[in-house]
Amino acid sequence: MKFGVLGTGVVGPAIAGGLVAHGHEVRLGARVAGNEKARRWAEAAGKNASSGTFADAAKFGEVVFSATRGDVAVDALRAAGNENLRGKALVDVSNPLDFSKGMPPSLFTAAAGDSLGERIQKEFPEARVVKALNMVNANLMANPGRLHGESDLFLCGNDAAAKERVAGVLKEFGWKTVHDLGDITGARGMEAYLLLWLRVYMTWNTPDFNVRIVR
Amino acid sequence: MKFGVLGTGVVGPAIAGGLVAHGHEVRLGARVAGNEKARRWAEAAGKNASSGTFADAAKFGEVVFSATRGDVAVDALRAAGNENLRGKALVDVSNPLDFSKGMPPSLFTAAAGDSLGERIQKEFPEARVVKALNMVNANLMANPGRLHGESDLFLCGNDAAAKERVAGVLKEFGWKTVHDLGDITGARGMEAYLLLWLRVYMTWNTPDFNVRIVR
Repeated sequence: MKFGVLGTGVVGPAIAGGLVAHGHEVRLGARVAGNEKARRWAEAAGKNASSGTFADAAKFGEVVFSATRGDVAVDALRAAGNENLRGKALVDVSNPLDFSKGMPPSLFTAAAGDSLGERIQKEFPEARVVKALNMVNANLMANPGRLHGESDLFLCGNDAAAKERVAGVLKEFGWKTVHDLGDITGARGMEAYLLLWLRVYMTWNTPDFNVRIVR
Repeated sequence: MKFGVLGTGVVGPAIAGGLVAHGHEVRLGARVAGNEKARRWAEAAGKNASSGTFADAAKFGEVVFSATRGDVAVDALRAAGNENLRGKALVDVSNPLDFSKGMPPSLFTAAAGDSLGERIQKEFPEARVVKALNMVNANLMANPGRLHGESDLFLCGNDAAAKERVAGVLKEFGWKTVHDLGDITGARGMEAYLLLWLRVYMTWNTPDFNVRIVR
């Protein structure tokens, strides 16, 4: 399958690399054409990897990952273009973190009580937004086997077929349990969890952990 | 040991019952003297159980559980009286849930970005506030064995001795892993998690679940 991945930070290349490793064609998108980091990633990642602008990557992908920082996610998707996202599964991996007051960050959606996932869906009503992977560190996203035991993922979104498609990708990555939390408003809980995640991270000084749901 | 438990809803009696079951003396406190629910609970729970006002219960306890609704927690503790809380471990079990707009609730601390645990510690600086048990349903608090597998708890607070004492009680209840998240500001993450908890609860229609941390 063809994927577009938006964002050249830590998360974008981690996901793009995972997709290439599982035989997919991936275009990594950056804000500007010729972005050095995206170009080098594509060179190193082999024949199924390429790079371009956000719009190039979004146009290329049958499924698009939004993997920029949360505070620039909507801007990046505007640059990608509604016409390149229309009808596609758009996986929102980002978190609405506000680092303006230092560590730990707060959520810039907290006062309004909504979520970044919802804001993206509202801004791009023709895209099929699926919130996923935002609850784990980039190192784990395509490599859940790094942990000493099985752990779980959540996803949510308004479109059942898009969620199924994304769940299939997550299972390729090695995630055995992916819980569907319903429509995109489920992103409120998935994003709020980051405040707990950050506290655990700061306490243990490692991002290598995740939750397993016990019933 | 002697415990005071404030709150006659679902949570207070669940904790009080667990404490009695482990051989402790417990006074369950209600807003008004002679509260029928508190009185009946004490009669049914045997010789180590008694009931009274919030102040009676707080005075009685060497450790006090604050187990009212979050929106009345500070008021209940004022009624309990600073003089009855001074120097004691005060276990804050409540969550800052705002149901004024229906389900799902939001957090009334969200806009300010702090937590109920911090507000209680600020209001009662001489108490040793420990945030704990707010991340699981009342049914599980004193009965983690209801779940099919081990799961984990978190706690936080400014006073190491108080946390150790509370962790000891939690271990009596059957919790094998209790993670210390540092000072009381850890309550931000522990309370924000409720938004995820509520979503899972509403999706699965059961409160019988908890997280296990996988590293």
